[in-house]
Amino acid sequence: MSETFEATVTAPVNIAVIKYWGKRDSALILPTNSSLSVTLSQDHLSTRTTIRASASFDKDRLWLNGVEEDIASSKRLVNCITTARKLRAALEQDDDKAAPLSKWSLHVCSENNFPTAAGLASSASGYAALVSALGALFELSQSTSELSRVARVGSGSACRSMFGGFVAWQAGVSDDGHDSLAVQVAGRQHWPELQALVLVASDKKKAISSTAGMQTTVETSALFAERVRSVVPKRMEAMQRAIAERDFGAFGEITMRDSNQFHAVCLDTFPPISYMNDVSRSVVSLVHAFNAARNRVAAAYTFDAGPNAVIYALSDDMRDLVELVTHCFPRDDETTPAAFYPDPFQIFASADQVGQRLTCPDVAQLAKAVGKFSPGSVRRIIHTEVGDGPR
Amino acid sequence: MSETFEATVTAPVNIAVIKYWGKRDSALILPTNSSLSVTLSQDHLSTRTTIRASASFDKDRLWLNGVEEDIASSKRLVNCITTARKLRAALEQDDDKAAPLSKWSLHVCSENNFPTAAGLASSASGYAALVSALGALFELSQSTSELSRVARVGSGSACRSMFGGFVAWQAGVSDDGHDSLAVQVAGRQHWPELQALVLVASDKKKAISSTAGMQTTVETSALFAERVRSVVPKRMEAMQRAIAERDFGAFGEITMRDSNQFHAVCLDTFPPISYMNDVSRSVVSLVHAFNAARNRVAAAYTFDAGPNAVIYALSDDMRDLVELVTHCFPRDDETTPAAFYPDPFQIFASADQVGQRLTCPDVAQLAKAVGKFSPGSVRRIIHTEVGDGPR
Repeated sequence: MSETFEATVTAPVNIAVIKYWGKRDSALILPTNSSLSVTLSQDHLSTRTTIRASASFDKDRLWLNGVEEDIASSKRLVNCITTARKLRAALEQDDDKAAPLSKWSLHVCSENNFPTAAGLASSASGYAALVSALGALFELSQSTSELSRVARVGSGSACRSMFGGFVAWQAGVSDDGHDSLAVQVAGRQHWPELQALVLVASDKKKAISSTAGMQTTVETSALFAERVRSVVPKRMEAMQRAIAERDFGAFGEITMRDSNQFHAVCLDTFPPISYMNDVSRSVVSLVHAFNAARNRVAAAYTFDAGPNAVIYALSDDMRDLVELVTHCFPRDDETTPAAFYPDPFQIFASADQVGQRLTCPDVAQLAKAVGKFSPGSVRRIIHTEVGDGPR
Repeated sequence: MSETFEATVTAPVNIAVIKYWGKRDSALILPTNSSLSVTLSQDHLSTRTTIRASASFDKDRLWLNGVEEDIASSKRLVNCITTARKLRAALEQDDDKAAPLSKWSLHVCSENNFPTAAGLASSASGYAALVSALGALFELSQSTSELSRVARVGSGSACRSMFGGFVAWQAGVSDDGHDSLAVQVAGRQHWPELQALVLVASDKKKAISSTAGMQTTVETSALFAERVRSVVPKRMEAMQRAIAERDFGAFGEITMRDSNQFHAVCLDTFPPISYMNDVSRSVVSLVHAFNAARNRVAAAYTFDAGPNAVIYALSDDMRDLVELVTHCFPRDDETTPAAFYPDPFQIFASADQVGQRLTCPDVAQLAKAVGKFSPGSVRRIIHTEVGDGPR
């Protein structure tokens, strides 16, 4: 029996607060602008990837959530593996004792700890897990930022999932992409009060893929260039300052403005791209009403390429926010309270208390003003916090 | 009994294809950019205003759709009347025989021939009717463009309802607004094949008023200035060329792009403004699918400050378009076929044929692809054409 090497890594999901939208180079996945994200806890959202290398394997193979996929059909996946193999080959050349892993075939098994049906983009955590596992398997000496370049080639935003905490993807200026990589802005412990709610919205419409959508935006939106040139650079600076100072008011406002502008340039695309639906729009209204009632930015929404909302808030505001959200967007009969909102931080005494009584008077009033949506408009709510990088 | 003078005028609704959004002067209603609209037929959408002047009236009074309103509470209405009175006073000074109408009180009665519940902005036709009626009553010698400045002070887009056909509102550059007025680009007979469908969408949410909304956009959208500076001027030129050449492909594409960009800058506003809902978004998808199937721009949507869609198309495409729309957005049980779609151009043999059989194969396929919305999502469909100015 031939020798087998194996590495297993889990990697987190990240949610951008300054959005990545648009490539200046599609093959290398070089973005038109820098972006910035928060890495979410792997306790609630993560991808686990195991890679085996063996001289006895006759070809590369891939299993996603237990189902074998054709590895060759994903050019990006092949690119990632090829790049990592080159780094390994260089290492083998310098070290006679290193096993010739760069020449062996690989078996890759990848699984998410959240249902694919949730409609959450798993490509970021997926490629971060793949590249981290390759790095571990191949014992690569490159830094995490250097490896983030490899993850970037798989899926742009994956480079940001190579770190925990708060992560910037620097757009870079070079044609070969060596300066387009992720750097950690602050660690996960920097701002422990920051939490997030993921509102999984039901949607019948198939969304336009972000890869296709963003290039149409670059080509057709008259406003997009202005966003890249004069808006994002200022926001990147202001956001890093807000994070450094743990200033939720600034953090939240920039987050909401940048989400809105991302969807604005999508709408300015021709044909227009709409990822948000009526439920998304109502979450926006609800958050602004919540903030208006508190006379401060107490919560901040952001939306990626789909109708799901992510709401950032500090832990002190979470109980009221969850009460409000679960009251206005009640679960349907087929969903148990524990499946709808598992309450991982135990902010309620029991699951049947969630959304049942509104303890805060202003929350009760807000819920009344916004009204109730039909049950199941939001399918489940994932309550999570800032998390660490690949393990 | 004292002498009474009276004038009655009807004025049309207009739907912009290059949108007005943003003021550089709120008091004078001077816009940040030029805009361009199509005047719709008064057979289907118009306001009728009667004004009486009498020495015996003790104060100005106003009735809207039969209900008396407090005239003093509308500063803009008072402004319009005051401006017209000044013009009349100048005329009286030059002509001894002219009755002193400028000193008499007025009774104003205004009615729409479409239900207010339709959610169609009636301020444009309303102020155009008011100013035209004042012009007739006062026998003013000013040109229609000159009078459009008076209508503009009542409601910006009202200045475009002073003409039939295709109308540009030139933004102007002067501080006193003398060069901010409407001019006719082409008459109603210039392009007789051009027709419009107004899809009245049901919406529970109260929309933000356009007056409040547009100023928030000017103040908070980072992309808005770019639209004003570099996008609209080019589109105004291209649109006038498209109209001159009766080029529906260019007309339709610019119309859709400009509607999308208007809603994009609304979304880039903080807090964001959303006028379109899921029904509106589906109309967008349906029109793009229709055009893709025909491999040309056969229909073009545009949305104002609400969820209603206006779809422009040439008369030859209207039967298929109505079939498609009525199939995908069926009437509810409380609405009779004749109330839902009155078929004023008799393109169907009878009302019960509308949306029942899809005669065109590509239309049948499209309807299948887009699916059916719940009955009543579109409440009624107004089919109309290009119309003339105030009568």
